[in-house]
Amino acid sequence: MSADSRGSREDILRAAHELMVEMDTVEISLSQIAEKAQLSAALVKYYFGSKDGMLLELLRQYKTAPGRLDALLAAPVSASEKLAMHIQGIVNVYSRAPYLNRLILTLLRRDSPMVKEISENFMRPMAEFHAKLLALGVQEGSMREIDPMSFNFMLVGACDNLFSRRAALPLGFGVPEITAEVRRKHVEELTRLFLAGVASDARAAGSEQRSA
Amino acid sequence: MSADSRGSREDILRAAHELMVEMDTVEISLSQIAEKAQLSAALVKYYFGSKDGMLLELLRQYKTAPGRLDALLAAPVSASEKLAMHIQGIVNVYSRAPYLNRLILTLLRRDSPMVKEISENFMRPMAEFHAKLLALGVQEGSMREIDPMSFNFMLVGACDNLFSRRAALPLGFGVPEITAEVRRKHVEELTRLFLAGVASDARAAGSEQRSA
Repeated sequence: MSADSRGSREDILRAAHELMVEMDTVEISLSQIAEKAQLSAALVKYYFGSKDGMLLELLRQYKTAPGRLDALLAAPVSASEKLAMHIQGIVNVYSRAPYLNRLILTLLRRDSPMVKEISENFMRPMAEFHAKLLALGVQEGSMREIDPMSFNFMLVGACDNLFSRRAALPLGFGVPEITAEVRRKHVEELTRLFLAGVASDARAAGSEQRSA
Repeated sequence: MSADSRGSREDILRAAHELMVEMDTVEISLSQIAEKAQLSAALVKYYFGSKDGMLLELLRQYKTAPGRLDALLAAPVSASEKLAMHIQGIVNVYSRAPYLNRLILTLLRRDSPMVKEISENFMRPMAEFHAKLLALGVQEGSMREIDPMSFNFMLVGACDNLFSRRAALPLGFGVPEITAEVRRKHVEELTRLFLAGVASDARAAGSEQRSA
């Protein structure tokens, strides 16, 4: 691939990313992408086969690196600290790509080999990581028994909602946008809610004794 | 309005509701709605002005009845019990209309008087309710200080995600659909997570003493 064609591919992916962030939707058209990238819409089809092919390529940039979740599980810190690091990690991803879960769901509605790839690279690794993390917490005695599937939906939803439903910020709270401070506060509140929410009774009592 | 025209209006709204549930998207076309309702697409425009007007009318069906959240705040039960009842209530709504938050966000992207109506009937009442509920819990001594805005995003996201991201059920967990049991379990886990997650230290210690 020549430097030029690489540049064009990247321009197209960047344009699609920027459009989805600015317009707060994944329903963007080929012509909008072409206009933003200042390239012909035909080039999108030439490089990526189709608009969906291009969106899948964009999605791949957010794939968790193989072994990264395993490394977090193996890190020499408590299960609660692993959970805190995980919360910060997924908030970082949603902050860069607030359209991420919406894009996944949109591509999953297509009947295609994409479904298998998305399932194997996004859904299942996260589901397995959560199940292992919770088991580790129970084993350590710091966490109670929790249904890993419910936990997955609760955690993803709680972390994602600030970004995917950010239109509510000005309307519900008079806050114009997600500033660094809004994001920092949200990570702090998420961490406190989930750490206390999954704590075993022994752990909750421990924190009380420390504060007494 | 004649019985016939009422019937047609209701047929159109029901068709749009069913399409959004079945297709797991709010991106439905006038012709799909017309085909589903077995009515002419022109009737949608005749009754509702536009497709968006029809979608707003559908959304109005999910408006919280005036005074209902105030009644919950005034109910003679603890703040934690109010929170548990609220969780059950919003899960019931998302269960009936898993497209609800997505529909709100889609209509908010339109420049129109809809934004004011949606903000005043959906965003603000919920935001104010959460702030008052948390203040009540702090006053009772059962809840810690929490940022009400973060709480709103965490709670809405955690409750909504099972429904709005239900495509992940078969792919991530091998679960074909949201059964009554999946839903019951999710409400149970949500209630435990949030009640423990917002509890003041004194409350967490109290639950430990009871279980000891």
